[in-house]
Amino acid sequence: MILEVAQLEITAGKEAAFEKGYHAARPLFLRAKGCKGVELKRSLEKPQTYRLFVQWETLEDHTVTFRNSPDFQEWRRLVQDNFSAPPAVEHLETVG
Amino acid sequence: MILEVAQLEITAGKEAAFEKGYHAARPLFLRAKGCKGVELKRSLEKPQTYRLFVQWETLEDHTVTFRNSPDFQEWRRLVQDNFSAPPAVEHLETVG
Repeated sequence: MILEVAQLEITAGKEAAFEKGYHAARPLFLRAKGCKGVELKRSLEKPQTYRLFVQWETLEDHTVTFRNSPDFQEWRRLVQDNFSAPPAVEHLETVG
Repeated sequence: MILEVAQLEITAGKEAAFEKGYHAARPLFLRAKGCKGVELKRSLEKPQTYRLFVQWETLEDHTVTFRNSPDFQEWRRLVQDNFSAPPAVEHLETVG
């Protein structure tokens, strides 16, 4: 299992629009091949910083299958106008 | 519930020592007031970067109670020689 962590910087004043877009897009993740969960969190120290956590069965389920799908384009369409910087994405695996 | 995310940069060659220290320290988190879980993950893109995820009932359980406890000093003692930079810590809350 791979955890995708995307750091999302949101323009001040656009938080509500971003969160609305996220809620609209959430089913797109949940129906994606290999997606096992999605959660959005917001920083207490930096309120313009959100982190999206998505659990994937494999790295390729995210980087190949999802990113090349129409649902990825739709996700970006729903939220990207609220970004103040390009998202920074990393993938993590649990240390057993 | 608050999620603490600590970004830990580990000196190359010290990964095994760090992971051993983490495993030794894990019970210190699990017995801390308000701690609901702890997990260590490692970046696929930047193998020297780990992220520690700790779930706390309240922010103060981490920032006041735990950080002022002897167990926090012991956690740092067990792992800090492996850090190549000071840890960067943030706290996140779930967007409902």
